[in-house]
Amino acid sequence: MSHSPSASKGSVTREHILDRAYEMARRDGIEGLSLGSLAQGVGMSKSGVFAHFGSREDLQLAVLDVGRRRFSAQVFAPAMDKPRGLERLRFIVAAWFDWVRAAEGGCVLLTAVSEFDGRPGVLHEAVVSQQLEWRATLCKSIALAVDTGELRPDVDPGQFAFETYALVLGVHHDSGLFGYAQSASHAERAFNRLVDIYRSP
Amino acid sequence: MSHSPSASKGSVTREHILDRAYEMARRDGIEGLSLGSLAQGVGMSKSGVFAHFGSREDLQLAVLDVGRRRFSAQVFAPAMDKPRGLERLRFIVAAWFDWVRAAEGGCVLLTAVSEFDGRPGVLHEAVVSQQLEWRATLCKSIALAVDTGELRPDVDPGQFAFETYALVLGVHHDSGLFGYAQSASHAERAFNRLVDIYRSP
Repeated sequence: MSHSPSASKGSVTREHILDRAYEMARRDGIEGLSLGSLAQGVGMSKSGVFAHFGSREDLQLAVLDVGRRRFSAQVFAPAMDKPRGLERLRFIVAAWFDWVRAAEGGCVLLTAVSEFDGRPGVLHEAVVSQQLEWRATLCKSIALAVDTGELRPDVDPGQFAFETYALVLGVHHDSGLFGYAQSASHAERAFNRLVDIYRSP
Repeated sequence: MSHSPSASKGSVTREHILDRAYEMARRDGIEGLSLGSLAQGVGMSKSGVFAHFGSREDLQLAVLDVGRRRFSAQVFAPAMDKPRGLERLRFIVAAWFDWVRAAEGGCVLLTAVSEFDGRPGVLHEAVVSQQLEWRATLCKSIALAVDTGELRPDVDPGQFAFETYALVLGVHHDSGLFGYAQSASHAERAFNRLVDIYRSP
């Protein structure tokens, strides 16, 4: 594919606007985004920002997708270099805890769940589809550790994934109140016990 | 104590305003509260609402306290009729899951944690103190089940409470996306396993 200079300049500008929008959404949620304050934040006119996104909803969807791509790049993609099985699963969970630590002050993806889980619409669909995708990926990583023989065949990946997700939510919830170190230590202990329970003899 | 008719009328009005404010906070968070839209919601003048709360911050603190009182009345108080030990602990956890089901569309207390955990100030202090109080109560209920001999003496109540709290967060997170029944069933299964692990032989 070849890009004309103006198309690629437009795409750089779009990424710059999205970076700023993502930072704003970390603080105020995706529902807190407005084209007006975003335009002010990037020093452009409102119509200039509008030219890159057809509507506020398109902007919100794009910000959600930035979150998905960053999460995937930081938590999932590096794990693909690890051998499938328990090592990869442990790597994913550790990288996920790191994501929570870095997201201190606001995780766009988790905030989006509280914002849109009860509000039917395009954003609700996008959030549900994103969460389903991540849960399926997590289930698959668990199932691979069964395939390698490291976890017992009677593991229920959906149950295991729910419990792992719950621990991450516990870290997210507690770390802002009582500090990351204590919360992550509780969660690691619980995750290690979960693995030990289902580890093949 | 005797109340003059006007004082008790004032207190009824205050409770009425708080009920409305609590409903608004369920949807928009405590940061979403404004004296203006609240006045409109209860059909009073802004200065009429202002007369009951010295400031927006006082209103926010009062709404947080409504949440604390309702949570305590629905989750903790009824458990006090149960014998101390595992029966009471199980009752608390079941009532807590019910609270999450009823809070579908927004739990003021959980939203308050995301709103204020990273923002120093009076509301942050109030949220931390509320969460510390509830965690201490939960730890005590766990410790009582050790005292009755039902749980083993090597239970770490802080760890057990963290894991229980994480399961509740898992239900809260998943139920809006995938339905309450499936989420609660995962959480109950995990909680029962946790109890079984630490149950005295």
